[in-house]
Amino acid sequence: MQRIPSKTVERLIVYRRVLASRVEGRSGHVYSHELAGMARVSAVQVRRDLMEAGFSGSPSRGYEVDELLGRIDRILDAPDGMKAVLVGVGNIGRALLSFLAGRGLKIEVVAAFDNDAAKIDRVISGCRVYDMQTLPERSRALGVRIGVIAVPGPQAQAAADALVEAGVTGILNFAPVPLLVRAGVQVEQVDIMRALEKVAHFAKQEKAREV
Amino acid sequence: MQRIPSKTVERLIVYRRVLASRVEGRSGHVYSHELAGMARVSAVQVRRDLMEAGFSGSPSRGYEVDELLGRIDRILDAPDGMKAVLVGVGNIGRALLSFLAGRGLKIEVVAAFDNDAAKIDRVISGCRVYDMQTLPERSRALGVRIGVIAVPGPQAQAAADALVEAGVTGILNFAPVPLLVRAGVQVEQVDIMRALEKVAHFAKQEKAREV
Repeated sequence: MQRIPSKTVERLIVYRRVLASRVEGRSGHVYSHELAGMARVSAVQVRRDLMEAGFSGSPSRGYEVDELLGRIDRILDAPDGMKAVLVGVGNIGRALLSFLAGRGLKIEVVAAFDNDAAKIDRVISGCRVYDMQTLPERSRALGVRIGVIAVPGPQAQAAADALVEAGVTGILNFAPVPLLVRAGVQVEQVDIMRALEKVAHFAKQEKAREV
Repeated sequence: MQRIPSKTVERLIVYRRVLASRVEGRSGHVYSHELAGMARVSAVQVRRDLMEAGFSGSPSRGYEVDELLGRIDRILDAPDGMKAVLVGVGNIGRALLSFLAGRGLKIEVVAAFDNDAAKIDRVISGCRVYDMQTLPERSRALGVRIGVIAVPGPQAQAAADALVEAGVTGILNFAPVPLLVRAGVQVEQVDIMRALEKVAHFAKQEKAREV
């Protein structure tokens, strides 16, 4: 399968989510303009994305929901699921473990790592915490493909290096620093402070306009 | 001041962060290519962004760091700071309160809201939790401008409506649903599950290529 653009992948994830949460479930048909309304994008965008995903529904009769969801699943998910590890068991790390636990996701967090002796060997939301030193060996043995980085900024690059060394090809980075990785490793940064400061800037501008 | 594009604001936030974390602190000069290296963007991008921000440094001698930081502060921050409230004191909400507490930020979380009686009146990381019902009145009285939504998806739109009613003009949304708000309200979504599923998709593609 050819590489689907990053923004299209993001929208496919949202389409799947809004379709799965419909009251009608997986049955019936959905028109592009209905799906567009639920996902807050244009109907043209929906049709373009589904074509790009190789989905040959009939726009005039609507798309068959079950077939569409099956197609998106095959594009997005690995058939046997994917194993992930968490690096850094602080506030954000613990919240993520709790948030992800027991959701029956295709992505399973199989181990967490920290260098704080007080945290090592604890089990948090069903996930055991191991010594950072054991990360490369343990992740490789477990066949881990995804790493979630939730350590402070200065430790993030070392965490990324250890993950890539262990064979990880996808990193979700919560640390507020850009990471350098080899080609072929996908890094997605979730920069909470940047998002908050951005909202504050535009809220300030709006306030200035009101006065 | 004219509206600075959203992507430029994001990069200004990163420039400020990397400059502030330099060992040399606020003193001295920095060349556009140095700042570009720290922020992992191109030097051309840095020069364009700083021009857009109205900064008249000399690219040949480098930018004066203290002056540049002062300029970015004036663009991004409200001089008297900004008050924020948190809606939803679950795993993510608690992690955010802990993460933001005591950082001396220009953005202060002055109250949290939840509809769980067991959480109301508790103080979490220095922030008191109040009954959701009191959100509009209390937020208005406190002069709150920013709302952080960390409730489950089905409750997010109601939370946004209550915040906007209370005079909030900036919303940071952690719920996995798009929000409808009136023009002039800035919404920034942090979609953790989407980011994780995206990383998993590309990690799967990479695995397929390796085989």
